[in-house]
Amino acid sequence: MNDIKIIEIKKSVFADNDKDAAALRQELKRRGVYLLNVMSSPGSGKTTTLIQAINRIKDHLRVAVMEADIDSDVDAVKIKEATGIPSIQLHTGGMCHLDAEMTRQGLDNLSLGEADLVILENVGNLVCPAEFDTGSCCNAMILSVPEGDDKPLKYPLMFSVCDLVLINKMDVLPYFDFNLEKCKEYIHQRNPRAQVIPICAKTGEGVDAFADWLLAQVKNWKEN
Amino acid sequence: MNDIKIIEIKKSVFADNDKDAAALRQELKRRGVYLLNVMSSPGSGKTTTLIQAINRIKDHLRVAVMEADIDSDVDAVKIKEATGIPSIQLHTGGMCHLDAEMTRQGLDNLSLGEADLVILENVGNLVCPAEFDTGSCCNAMILSVPEGDDKPLKYPLMFSVCDLVLINKMDVLPYFDFNLEKCKEYIHQRNPRAQVIPICAKTGEGVDAFADWLLAQVKNWKEN
Repeated sequence: MNDIKIIEIKKSVFADNDKDAAALRQELKRRGVYLLNVMSSPGSGKTTTLIQAINRIKDHLRVAVMEADIDSDVDAVKIKEATGIPSIQLHTGGMCHLDAEMTRQGLDNLSLGEADLVILENVGNLVCPAEFDTGSCCNAMILSVPEGDDKPLKYPLMFSVCDLVLINKMDVLPYFDFNLEKCKEYIHQRNPRAQVIPICAKTGEGVDAFADWLLAQVKNWKEN
Repeated sequence: MNDIKIIEIKKSVFADNDKDAAALRQELKRRGVYLLNVMSSPGSGKTTTLIQAINRIKDHLRVAVMEADIDSDVDAVKIKEATGIPSIQLHTGGMCHLDAEMTRQGLDNLSLGEADLVILENVGNLVCPAEFDTGSCCNAMILSVPEGDDKPLKYPLMFSVCDLVLINKMDVLPYFDFNLEKCKEYIHQRNPRAQVIPICAKTGEGVDAFADWLLAQVKNWKEN
């Protein structure tokens, strides 16, 4: 079933991650490649959301995906099977996040000349990934309804560094105590400019808005 | 509303965490205190589960709780209000896990002579907390149905170090693609001796079994 390329990422030896991230971002700008870093808790629906969005934009943009995980290649396989786009798996060797150098190791295994948009699905974790600039052009995160509306209070840094928050699994809202307005309020306390889009990756609700956001981001990155 | 003690945990300076954890465990044994380390993703229902279980055992055991979080004291307040037992909040200063020395800093702020069972609610994270022995007598974790049945494949270490896995939010099983038998199989691939108890903290389903497990664990720890 499986012709997925698995990259065993080495721990970064660079002391200055911010500097390395800035250099990577400049290189991506020069090459006209937009890198989106997507973060979330385990099981919030990152992969399903990406599949839905990619299938809406892949006729307009050349997209590739890097799936980071401690172990397994289930996500990269899923993406490739469901969308047909290039997808590689990054194994972090037990590490809880990716930094800029680790991200670069992944990018070196893609044909960047053939991509307008690379999506990095970071390790499922609301803490550590928020602390490391991957060199991405933008950070997005997915919070799912079952996790609760209080997460921006408990994981403030994650919500501060993300300019897009997708609120996923809106189909199960009736079964959980989740106040969407209160959640938006908490998110904007952490990051007033964050855009919040409620979606349901399973039914496709709201995914058009996310796809439009992606198209606009890449267009803007290439033109400005 | 808030007379919760908040402890700002300092980063550990001990190089050898395993040694420190073993020493803490010996001390707990000597003092007849059972320390349970509870881990999970953000939003899996740790606090609600603990409230339900504590209310079932607090007439039989003296229980205290340490709530670890990056920020906020919402969980410690909730526990105290809902159970009346001693509850303190540990702030990890952005850190993604607790080690044995940090756990000891928390315990120093409880009256250990007045506790049979101390429950440590670790930072919501399936990666880093699994790597650090806190000195607890046992590790337990909560996986909730909305997170998906494939989590033992993606976060193998977490499932390897936990001898009890509570599968929470069983009430929403009909709305998610979650195969309980497959999940149990994945868990036992990681840890053949792990006990798996399906529960619903919201309705109370299965919590009696967890409470009985806790009572038996503490009895065994004190007597053997």
